[in-house]
Amino acid sequence: MKDKQAMPSDNNLDLVIRNAEVVTASDRFICDIGVRDGKIVALGQSLGNAKEEIDASGMLVLPGGVDAHCHLDQPMPDGIRMADDFFTGTRAAVCGGTTTVIPFAAQEKGGSLKEAVMDYHRRADGRAVIDYAFHLIVADPTPAVLNEELPVLIQEGFTSFKVYMTYDDLKLSDREMLEVLDVARRHKALVMVHAENADCISWLTEKLINEGNIEPRFHGLSRPSVVEREATHRAISFAELVDVPILIVHVSGKEAIEQIRWAQGRGLKILAETCPQYLYLTAEDMGLHGDHGYEGAKCVCSPPPRDPENQKAVWHALANGVFSVFSSDHAPFNYDDPKGKKLGGEAQPFNHIPNGVPGIETRLPLLFDGVRRGKLSLHQFVELTAYKPAKIYGLYPRKGTIAVGADADIVLWDPNRKVRIANSSLHHAVDYTPYEGIEVTGWPMTTLSRGEVIVRNGEYLEPTAGRGRFLKAGQPEL
Amino acid sequence: MKDKQAMPSDNNLDLVIRNAEVVTASDRFICDIGVRDGKIVALGQSLGNAKEEIDASGMLVLPGGVDAHCHLDQPMPDGIRMADDFFTGTRAAVCGGTTTVIPFAAQEKGGSLKEAVMDYHRRADGRAVIDYAFHLIVADPTPAVLNEELPVLIQEGFTSFKVYMTYDDLKLSDREMLEVLDVARRHKALVMVHAENADCISWLTEKLINEGNIEPRFHGLSRPSVVEREATHRAISFAELVDVPILIVHVSGKEAIEQIRWAQGRGLKILAETCPQYLYLTAEDMGLHGDHGYEGAKCVCSPPPRDPENQKAVWHALANGVFSVFSSDHAPFNYDDPKGKKLGGEAQPFNHIPNGVPGIETRLPLLFDGVRRGKLSLHQFVELTAYKPAKIYGLYPRKGTIAVGADADIVLWDPNRKVRIANSSLHHAVDYTPYEGIEVTGWPMTTLSRGEVIVRNGEYLEPTAGRGRFLKAGQPEL
Amino acid sequence: MKDKQAMPSDNNLDLVIRNAEVVTASDRFICDIGVRDGKIVALGQSLGNAKEEIDASGMLVLPGGVDAHCHLDQPMPDGIRMADDFFTGTRAAVCGGTTTVIPFAAQEKGGSLKEAVMDYHRRADGRAVIDYAFHLIVADPTPAVLNEELPVLIQEGFTSFKVYMTYDDLKLSDREMLEVLDVARRHKALVMVHAENADCISWLTEKLINEGNIEPRFHGLSRPSVVEREATHRAISFAELVDVPILIVHVSGKEAIEQIRWAQGRGLKILAETCPQYLYLTAEDMGLHGDHGYEGAKCVCSPPPRDPENQKAVWHALANGVFSVFSSDHAPFNYDDPKGKKLGGEAQPFNHIPNGVPGIETRLPLLFDGVRRGKLSLHQFVELTAYKPAKIYGLYPRKGTIAVGADADIVLWDPNRKVRIANSSLHHAVDYTPYEGIEVTGWPMTTLSRGEVIVRNGEYLEPTAGRGRFLKAGQPEL
Amino acid sequence: MKDKQAMPSDNNLDLVIRNAEVVTASDRFICDIGVRDGKIVALGQSLGNAKEEIDASGMLVLPGGVDAHCHLDQPMPDGIRMADDFFTGTRAAVCGGTTTVIPFAAQEKGGSLKEAVMDYHRRADGRAVIDYAFHLIVADPTPAVLNEELPVLIQEGFTSFKVYMTYDDLKLSDREMLEVLDVARRHKALVMVHAENADCISWLTEKLINEGNIEPRFHGLSRPSVVEREATHRAISFAELVDVPILIVHVSGKEAIEQIRWAQGRGLKILAETCPQYLYLTAEDMGLHGDHGYEGAKCVCSPPPRDPENQKAVWHALANGVFSVFSSDHAPFNYDDPKGKKLGGEAQPFNHIPNGVPGIETRLPLLFDGVRRGKLSLHQFVELTAYKPAKIYGLYPRKGTIAVGADADIVLWDPNRKVRIANSSLHHAVDYTPYEGIEVTGWPMTTLSRGEVIVRNGEYLEPTAGRGRFLKAGQPEL
Repeated sequence: MKDKQAMPSDNNLDLVIRNAEVVTASDRFICDIGVRDGKIVALGQSLGNAKEEIDASGMLVLPGGVDAHCHLDQPMPDGIRMADDFFTGTRAAVCGGTTTVIPFAAQEKGGSLKEAVMDYHRRADGRAVIDYAFHLIVADPTPAVLNEELPVLIQEGFTSFKVYMTYDDLKLSDREMLEVLDVARRHKALVMVHAENADCISWLTEKLINEGNIEPRFHGLSRPSVVEREATHRAISFAELVDVPILIVHVSGKEAIEQIRWAQGRGLKILAETCPQYLYLTAEDMGLHGDHGYEGAKCVCSPPPRDPENQKAVWHALANGVFSVFSSDHAPFNYDDPKGKKLGGEAQPFNHIPNGVPGIETRLPLLFDGVRRGKLSLHQFVELTAYKPAKIYGLYPRKGTIAVGADADIVLWDPNRKVRIANSSLHHAVDYTPYEGIEVTGWPMTTLSRGEVIVRNGEYLEPTAGRGRFLKAGQPEL
Repeated sequence: MKDKQAMPSDNNLDLVIRNAEVVTASDRFICDIGVRDGKIVALGQSLGNAKEEIDASGMLVLPGGVDAHCHLDQPMPDGIRMADDFFTGTRAAVCGGTTTVIPFAAQEKGGSLKEAVMDYHRRADGRAVIDYAFHLIVADPTPAVLNEELPVLIQEGFTSFKVYMTYDDLKLSDREMLEVLDVARRHKALVMVHAENADCISWLTEKLINEGNIEPRFHGLSRPSVVEREATHRAISFAELVDVPILIVHVSGKEAIEQIRWAQGRGLKILAETCPQYLYLTAEDMGLHGDHGYEGAKCVCSPPPRDPENQKAVWHALANGVFSVFSSDHAPFNYDDPKGKKLGGEAQPFNHIPNGVPGIETRLPLLFDGVRRGKLSLHQFVELTAYKPAKIYGLYPRKGTIAVGADADIVLWDPNRKVRIANSSLHHAVDYTPYEGIEVTGWPMTTLSRGEVIVRNGEYLEPTAGRGRFLKAGQPEL
Repeated sequence: MKDKQAMPSDNNLDLVIRNAEVVTASDRFICDIGVRDGKIVALGQSLGNAKEEIDASGMLVLPGGVDAHCHLDQPMPDGIRMADDFFTGTRAAVCGGTTTVIPFAAQEKGGSLKEAVMDYHRRADGRAVIDYAFHLIVADPTPAVLNEELPVLIQEGFTSFKVYMTYDDLKLSDREMLEVLDVARRHKALVMVHAENADCISWLTEKLINEGNIEPRFHGLSRPSVVEREATHRAISFAELVDVPILIVHVSGKEAIEQIRWAQGRGLKILAETCPQYLYLTAEDMGLHGDHGYEGAKCVCSPPPRDPENQKAVWHALANGVFSVFSSDHAPFNYDDPKGKKLGGEAQPFNHIPNGVPGIETRLPLLFDGVRRGKLSLHQFVELTAYKPAKIYGLYPRKGTIAVGADADIVLWDPNRKVRIANSSLHHAVDYTPYEGIEVTGWPMTTLSRGEVIVRNGEYLEPTAGRGRFLKAGQPEL
Repeated sequence: MKDKQAMPSDNNLDLVIRNAEVVTASDRFICDIGVRDGKIVALGQSLGNAKEEIDASGMLVLPGGVDAHCHLDQPMPDGIRMADDFFTGTRAAVCGGTTTVIPFAAQEKGGSLKEAVMDYHRRADGRAVIDYAFHLIVADPTPAVLNEELPVLIQEGFTSFKVYMTYDDLKLSDREMLEVLDVARRHKALVMVHAENADCISWLTEKLINEGNIEPRFHGLSRPSVVEREATHRAISFAELVDVPILIVHVSGKEAIEQIRWAQGRGLKILAETCPQYLYLTAEDMGLHGDHGYEGAKCVCSPPPRDPENQKAVWHALANGVFSVFSSDHAPFNYDDPKGKKLGGEAQPFNHIPNGVPGIETRLPLLFDGVRRGKLSLHQFVELTAYKPAKIYGLYPRKGTIAVGADADIVLWDPNRKVRIANSSLHHAVDYTPYEGIEVTGWPMTTLSRGEVIVRNGEYLEPTAGRGRFLKAGQPEL
């Protein structure tokens, strides 16, 4: 009898990926993947035919990356402008194997968070080529924000917010941090923390500049590890006091790691994120001497890159479970641009340089190369770059895995392809990459977003801008 | 066109489990599960019909448990006899949701390891009702064992071996441990370590007995935490020296946990296991006063149960990643039996009591109850009881997950069913359970082994003894 | 030959203490002590005669105590008044075996530090019966204070200053702390830190009071250990950043101790002090129910007393070198007084209660009792109560030891005398002691200040008020 | 009036040291020191005349050093012979500022401890030029030794004994260690532990030698830090189990230090010692290439010297209180001698080289140089080299301080004298020093033993051999 035929007995599939060696956060198996209406509807041996077929032989088939920390078209103070908007940013992301991004809708001091969200929707609409959710940045936790805006926004799918312990236009007082954490606890949202001590940085910065030490490399000396460690310990203490989980973003090295691991060992729910710049850059890179000694500005970000011993500690903490998330912290500022790194011109002191490095397209290959080198397992790679970010930020099970019911956000990786990173090959709108010249093995060749092939064999297919959809985030799963 | 119908287009399925809410080590999704020839061949929405159908509505569908540490029909010295053989042991296991067991083929001092394996095969053949692999116990690492038997046995699918740092008939010297570890390193096998200091125990035991302190409760005083901690540190040091991973079995509390977490933090590959007795029993239970003060013998095992603070530390380490494996360490000695706990009669000193408690059937429900109480996540439950044991002991991907290509070893859990544990309801051949009277929520209702329903709605279906197959273990994935 | 006679051949002694069993920070020996002009000029067997002789047989002869943290006649905000001035305070001190006190000359916000010192001199002049130095309290580190007043004051003998991380009228910002530490580094002074996080305390206090939890016992809940630990870690980080030693005052328990010991182990010069209230009081004492539930106010101090486990940790850290100083933190507020503990009346919330407990007279006997109980050695007692305070605060070798050249500040202890502490027997002007009823063994019977007997056999001899001299402190020896 | 003259009124002094700037473990003061009958009887300003006078102006006057770990004329197996007997050894010691030595009376396996002591007395009698006590070495703790010999010997003044966890002819089993510790606990003696894991060393040694790696530098690879750390942890665990203090001798670096500091932080009484070789030598020194590649044998000792990072950790632990004792571990084997380092000839493997380096004369200057460099304080120098060794080994207050009643064992140090160490200037009988060529600042110029000047202005005065007296040790003060 016809309807005794196996699955799906009554529907044709839109797409089948054949011979897929699927790798998820925990499993690895070979099967065909059946897709219908943008979702995975079947995993099986010898699935029936479909309208479209892709042969994945020789590839690893992974869930599309979730970049849970990136900045796109974010309004900036002081005339600074980001080079990437939602179109160029998501284009670069998907070319690097990422199918979901979570940039930041940032409140201004004195401004409304609700309006920041509305503004940010306008920036994304019609431009994103892959799906996206928003984190919030809470820069001014007035009673109205705490008691009215935030609870409503959490309800509406904005379940994570970032707070800053440094930067004059963003930083919260200890009291404000406690109040934001308390809202998160009561409404089951997650607070992300940029942990550096503002006063230490300003004190050191003034000393350095007063002594005439203004080149980019002094950026690193203005924010030594102890400054990050202190703020990390403080944030942990606040989380312990309020009894709520937090996530420490962009952890740069062993001192902060020690604090986080200590807290985790005491049973606190302290999550942590790191980024490619802490694996591949060092303080030396901020001292590059090209371009009248200013070229190091390309690597200026905060916390700053440290040294090889700290890099090793970060690799290690990726392997032993200290970190849950590996993000790009993509901060797209042109180098040769009066609205970017050269904001104040080359003769300006380091504290005028916009902080952050671009990396949305290179994030996954840079970490994948660590898999090849035995630094972490392939499952850990998926966990850190897709699965955990999706879980933690309330996007699972739509995103972050290859399973029945999930969105067909799928990447076919060639684990053996060698690529030398060159900005000329990248798809962002930034005029440099800090990883220029680094060779990695493994590259995302074909990437699908909700079943649509966006990149095929390394070629960006120019899908409709605006095809990317906004994702309402659910409750964080920690 | 008929052959455009989807999967599997040319084969009917033997079995479909419908409406399965599948939970693996990382994922959770709803689908039908298609089984053919004992293997999972499809996961999909609305799979076609099959010869047999099971409706899993209202159940959680988990991979069958892998009990990676249990003792069945193991030859014992001194006239002691185990109550469970492969038939009663695997029957009890499967009734508790376990579909794979890994007991121990134990070398005797002076004996051949190869012959121990052959003997153990004979004990399993025709009796096991679920699949099984063997660990080896290396009690006498002669050059022949190290250089000839072990390498061959590893090749033949015995890729894990246990060594003892205590017990006169089993313990290895430090030198022997180094040599066993070196073989493991060269042949990529995994060494499991029973970590307690033999000399400390014998010194304390003699002191206690000389002072007339012979009741079962003095067993605990003869093996305090420091004795376990010391051996744990020593084993870690040997692993570090030889540069090989090890797995510390049946960790009982915070002192050993501290050592293991310290080692993990330094980047050493030190794995660890714990067991239900360290979550549910305490030293007090060895002091039970029924039966002329002897009833505490029921809870005598090594390392001994500690106290509530240590229980808490063990729960905690299950949650934060210190442990990879949760096993029963099922050691089936009858209580009221001259070949069991009452070996020497009630007036005999504690050191005559056979060590170990039964628990092969209660392992999973006891841990599952912790999920309900928020002690660990459902994914961690699967990871600790099935996924990681299968990976670590070379049985993955056949065992340990629900994925295309895996054996259809599947358990349907009723997460809400309340059960008060009673030995009268258990299926082992032991005359007691140390967990008598404990109420748990959540119970495995229906269990399949390679697609065959062995337990249905809590009823054991009496499959053919001997249907269980020997599993050759592959290289450990750590 | 006459001029072959031994020492001092040409001078008579004013006083000889015979048969003294002297105990210093390191040594213990029996000799006669020769004193001339208020100084020790000879230690020897069978010293020649002197104008005055004291037989110390049966006594332990210790250096007089140095109470390096006490508050006397310190101007307070909000109409609060201290019960002890320099006369009653030093009278009580010397009756408790203390011969030097170091109270605080406190700057007011907006005020001059220099003038605070001059005012404080006026309060001490003509009143003190023993010698005294001043710490400074820096509450408003304006450029004038940092660059002009402090360097001059350090030069003039005020080489230690205290900063507060809490209390609205005293607390410094992180930036201010860095600047004060930097002055200390450049001028070789020592900063003492009151480490509690102000914002955490105010946030918790508001919550508690809004919920109607106003009784004294809620004081403890408003300042949990994590609040102290956070500030301790922060202060340590600032010291590390500035590269200067600090001393954390009145450490209350294990969390702060853990941070300090961690820092010491990393090679940082982090000193620490604790006080009797953390050995003898607990949070329970703030919940005493006499006097309409308000009597617990008698034990309100900050950080608050914790629990027995924390008491144990403090005893332990006294023994193993974490602490260098044991002070009273004497804060003399009358209980039954509208200018003291009952400032706002009994119905007022806990945050109106003046913080601090009296203890200048009981400090030494309370710690000495720990010597008897094996908690610390007699040498550690001397080190913590006299030697190290004198060294650290620049008063050594005048104070803190019994050695040739030192001031003859000497106490004859009866190590066996049992005393039940009763406020009626104490010499301060406070109307209660929190230690009422505690029995200690060991009491200072006879106390000399610069060779003058001030207390003889437990009787206060009523010396001239104002005989105590101001001590210019030298550079701290750390 | 004559009898009003001060002290000692009725006795002449034998000796006065004038203008002494005395430094003890805690104090520093200027006075004259009066000596009579070999003892200090007075410290005072302007002491009367004496038969002999020494002017100490410009010198630091310190207690004579106590070298608590040195080997002199100790019977050795395998034809090895020590180069120094009690005469040359104590001569060298006193020329280096040491006035008390505590070498080892070593039991042989199968031999009597009592007889070892008698034999060792015979070796010392008539030869020693300074005072000495004996530690025991317990190599064979038979019941007779444990129950009869040891208790009697402790009573007779042998209150410390050393046990070895390595070396075939000396090592104890875990059980034997427990038994020795238990005797120490019951009779209040102190056990010193050589902590290295014997089996690890033999396993590594065989591997190295089988691979042809026989040169002296492989000695270091045969005893890596983990081998010392493991044994240190084990010894600590035994001490914890038995509840008795121990002292870990010759700690070489950070891994063992970490264990010891961890134990001290937990409240265990674990004492520790280190030696000059761990401050001044590294593994590189065992790879010196002179003399056909064999010259590194001069620096072969166990545990072996490590690397600069470990040296730093040792310096640091000297400063922060981890160590109580700084000894030489003087092991005098000639280099160019078939009974010494070249025992088996230059072509012999490293494990034939007698372990140990000479250093009895250079111990104090090498550490003193650290005072100059700010590594530790002058008081810590005295504490580590004289005061604590005397206290811990039951020789205080006779030795270890400058106080009334103590033996007049006194050293006049010139803190500014620069000396380049050369074996040609040393007074031991060994044909080399591993410190050849190192320049130190500070040297002991004049040394008195019981009031007798043995070295004057750097010149050894050739006192009567045998003037040194045996010291019965009292109960250890820990």
